[in-house]
Amino acid sequence: MASETMEGGGVGRRTWTAALAVIGDEILSGRTQDKNVSQLALWLNEQGIRLAEVRIVPDELERIAGTVNELRARHDYLFTTGGIGPTHDDITVDAIAAAFGVGVIVHPEAREILENYYRDRPGGLTEARLRMARVPDGAELLLNPTSGAPGVRMDNVYILAGVPHIAASMLDGLTGKLEGGRPVISVIVGARAAESDVADLLRETEAANPGVAIGSYPFFREGRYGANFVIRSEDGELARRTGDQLADRLREAGYDPVEGGI
Amino acid sequence: MASETMEGGGVGRRTWTAALAVIGDEILSGRTQDKNVSQLALWLNEQGIRLAEVRIVPDELERIAGTVNELRARHDYLFTTGGIGPTHDDITVDAIAAAFGVGVIVHPEAREILENYYRDRPGGLTEARLRMARVPDGAELLLNPTSGAPGVRMDNVYILAGVPHIAASMLDGLTGKLEGGRPVISVIVGARAAESDVADLLRETEAANPGVAIGSYPFFREGRYGANFVIRSEDGELARRTGDQLADRLREAGYDPVEGGI
Repeated sequence: MASETMEGGGVGRRTWTAALAVIGDEILSGRTQDKNVSQLALWLNEQGIRLAEVRIVPDELERIAGTVNELRARHDYLFTTGGIGPTHDDITVDAIAAAFGVGVIVHPEAREILENYYRDRPGGLTEARLRMARVPDGAELLLNPTSGAPGVRMDNVYILAGVPHIAASMLDGLTGKLEGGRPVISVIVGARAAESDVADLLRETEAANPGVAIGSYPFFREGRYGANFVIRSEDGELARRTGDQLADRLREAGYDPVEGGI
Repeated sequence: MASETMEGGGVGRRTWTAALAVIGDEILSGRTQDKNVSQLALWLNEQGIRLAEVRIVPDELERIAGTVNELRARHDYLFTTGGIGPTHDDITVDAIAAAFGVGVIVHPEAREILENYYRDRPGGLTEARLRMARVPDGAELLLNPTSGAPGVRMDNVYILAGVPHIAASMLDGLTGKLEGGRPVISVIVGARAAESDVADLLRETEAANPGVAIGSYPFFREGRYGANFVIRSEDGELARRTGDQLADRLREAGYDPVEGGI
């Protein structure tokens, strides 16, 4: 459920949230490295929408349908990736139709797109290929400028391809079209410090600046410890001011802060 | 809940399942690319355990606790990654203690490890560093051979670091120690085929071989379409036989199958 931002960003300002359901045995088997979480998160932030949770679920109809119903009720938007191709393991459309309690139809405009695409190709529009025109009854297509393959929107559920560059082109087509709030601004300050040595300083800086969250991400590189501190807020000015404060405090403590991170 | 494998792998054979809760605002913001899902999935499979679902949740205590309680009841094992460092945003231990309804204590052996580690280091064992010895009351440490940092086990919940190479060393320490069944064997056959052209053939091959699942993963490389077909089964012999059948059928259909995938 969308929550109200109670501090920093202005009392009562609405925060728009989205969830992502990644559908795919290939991710759960470890065979394929997911790239859609990060890609969607960054795109959503530009739209002023917060990616609030992600679930990776297997290619099982009931599991997908249950997850879809839970997440679409809890967030402003739900995105799914994967399972919309022409083969027997592509069951996302059926699962989402089941979640909404509607049938599956062949979308006339999607059929037309496929008919044109396959007109001069061997085999033409086979039954397998026509599967890609199937949508839950009541859904509309998400046309996109850079690729033929459309995504599908059913209520607040956005059904995208699993192949990252096709998912990206479907998102391109949606850019600027979703209602959202303000993006979160991140300011990064890095230091060659063990995070346990600056833990107090970080906590105090966060506490002194209501409306920011500071994350600490340690690393070990070239034989030395270090960490990047990420200051996040919907209020960009506040994030920058907090970043300056943190850099000052790190300098006072004997470190050499690096703006933008290490 | 663990399910019974009803076909292929032998009637009544138990399938062991695990879930993963990835704890981290940095993954949900898109700033950091997760690497633990794939790493854990591959390791679990070697232990004969199936990664059955993943959730990525923000650094919020109630959200983490709720997710932990849902997933630990549903699976044989639950793993968590992230949020166990020394800084204010590291709240995984507190969240898991809350999930179990117990307090948080400083584990004597963990304190000893940290005391030894920081004895000759500037500052010694500060309060921030001592945070890393905190565990839910009743938990035990997951010692590991390659790194000082221990993980934590609380009942069937395994609490790992978020930094992938530290998580990996914690898994090293657990190798062979968890009860599991048989690993899933994957056989891969690739072809320079548009998957819509071979969809029927794939579906029929899967249907003819109960106990296998065939996934189809299309790609577009060097200006040509292709796909890899992944045949998965707990019965390695069956997976290999199905792979051979699929290769034969692809050859009959005029393609040049590539064992091991393209």
